[in-house]
Amino acid sequence: MMASEASQRITEACLASFADAPDARGKEIAQALVRHLHAFTLEIEPTREEWGKAIEFLTRVGHTCVGARQEFILLSDVLGVSMLVETMNEGDDEGATESTVLGPFYVDEPPHAAQGADLTAGLIARGESMLVDVTVEDTSGNPVSGATVDIWQCAPDGLYDVQRDLPQGEYELRARFTSDSEGKVTCRSIMPIPYQVPSDGPVGDLLAATSRHPWRPAHVHFRIVAEGYETLTTHLFPNGDPYLESDVVFGVKPSLVIDFDDAGVAGSGEGAESRVLRHRFALQSAS
Amino acid sequence: MMASEASQRITEACLASFADAPDARGKEIAQALVRHLHAFTLEIEPTREEWGKAIEFLTRVGHTCVGARQEFILLSDVLGVSMLVETMNEGDDEGATESTVLGPFYVDEPPHAAQGADLTAGLIARGESMLVDVTVEDTSGNPVSGATVDIWQCAPDGLYDVQRDLPQGEYELRARFTSDSEGKVTCRSIMPIPYQVPSDGPVGDLLAATSRHPWRPAHVHFRIVAEGYETLTTHLFPNGDPYLESDVVFGVKPSLVIDFDDAGVAGSGEGAESRVLRHRFALQSAS
Repeated sequence: MMASEASQRITEACLASFADAPDARGKEIAQALVRHLHAFTLEIEPTREEWGKAIEFLTRVGHTCVGARQEFILLSDVLGVSMLVETMNEGDDEGATESTVLGPFYVDEPPHAAQGADLTAGLIARGESMLVDVTVEDTSGNPVSGATVDIWQCAPDGLYDVQRDLPQGEYELRARFTSDSEGKVTCRSIMPIPYQVPSDGPVGDLLAATSRHPWRPAHVHFRIVAEGYETLTTHLFPNGDPYLESDVVFGVKPSLVIDFDDAGVAGSGEGAESRVLRHRFALQSAS
Repeated sequence: MMASEASQRITEACLASFADAPDARGKEIAQALVRHLHAFTLEIEPTREEWGKAIEFLTRVGHTCVGARQEFILLSDVLGVSMLVETMNEGDDEGATESTVLGPFYVDEPPHAAQGADLTAGLIARGESMLVDVTVEDTSGNPVSGATVDIWQCAPDGLYDVQRDLPQGEYELRARFTSDSEGKVTCRSIMPIPYQVPSDGPVGDLLAATSRHPWRPAHVHFRIVAEGYETLTTHLFPNGDPYLESDVVFGVKPSLVIDFDDAGVAGSGEGAESRVLRHRFALQSAS
């Protein structure tokens, strides 16, 4: 079941076929893809039936990408590739906030909201109320005002708004803020909970077949864009979550796990929130 | 733009996540996939935008898989993977006919046809007439009777029947035969011509972007199933075709290139065919 010389000829012919690619980067990517894909194939020696199943699986993944459902991002997530790409693209400024995966539930143009906005409006099950009080800074601690700060999270049933049949243009627990003169963004939300990635599709079948659970630890997403800085895509995870060690998409970094609590808040007149997400994001300067 | 320690942790966590997979083969494949996919990603260091484009490309490939159109097989073909899988699964009996790719135009249950059938019935443009006269044997030259022999090829416009809007259950230039007591299958067809793989989809875009042509050299497909033997999936290519050296799916092997000609035929009463495809297939015994 090995024909190493014949196999090598195929790999060489395939590499050579990309030799005239006009774009140097495209050529580099295509040839690297061929080398690694062939090495993978040679290592596992798939039967024709296994190869057919792989084709079928990829086709199902593609067919599951409908509307806001992006099964290929999910596949990239559970195979650790999304997290790898995110990590490789991170800057290396001392003290900059670490990044993590964007995830498949990001919305490019979320609704704009004013400081202090209540993101729970319209929610039926409200969960544990939480104050979000974050500051955008540079790595020297200077406030970054005018930054675009997207915040999103799942509802108490474990679903994001884009996973529901909301009327066009309506969102839940998702908004875009602008940091104020002190770099601050505040809003009212609810305590995030662990949730399962969509497991009714081929990626869910892959997880089930390999005895992997589909859970992500609770988190709130942030995406921060500011002129002169690298875009920061990250989460904050509440300390103590049972899935911090086994996040299905490998998104947890120790520096992103914090206490969602602030004893001083209840008495400081900021409201009845029992939990507080307070954090300082330090942006990497643009390269 | 490298965070090798952080990257390594992600790869290790992802490999570990598959450690409890109940099926040993599934675990082996999943872990090999992670290793090779991560090595590829680390080598090319994709930007977030490039990664996004890759997701978009794969999604388009999936969405292009509609009905008989199988864009993922085509992608596997033009990246040399299909040919690699075929070659690795080939037996190594001395003298057995070599195999090549199945291709995306195979039909699992083609219509049955009798010896000598005319596959060109219904064709508008008939092309150059050709007699197919093949024999199925074992590697010692003994005839294999009762073998199921599927034959298919493209029409003079370069399209296969499944690429057309034919009524359900109707086929062109495609049939399933049973080899007779001498191992023979004969039929009437037309001389195959070079054709382009479907290039109006994402795989076509990939070829165009990398300056690869979409041509396959002319060929007739055969798939032969017989009890006690390995299934043979192969083509025969007419000698002299301009694309023999640059087949877009890397399917050509020198032993499968033959002269489609037989000076003796016209005078032997077999009909008016100007071309003859005469060949002896030698089946590999089942392992």
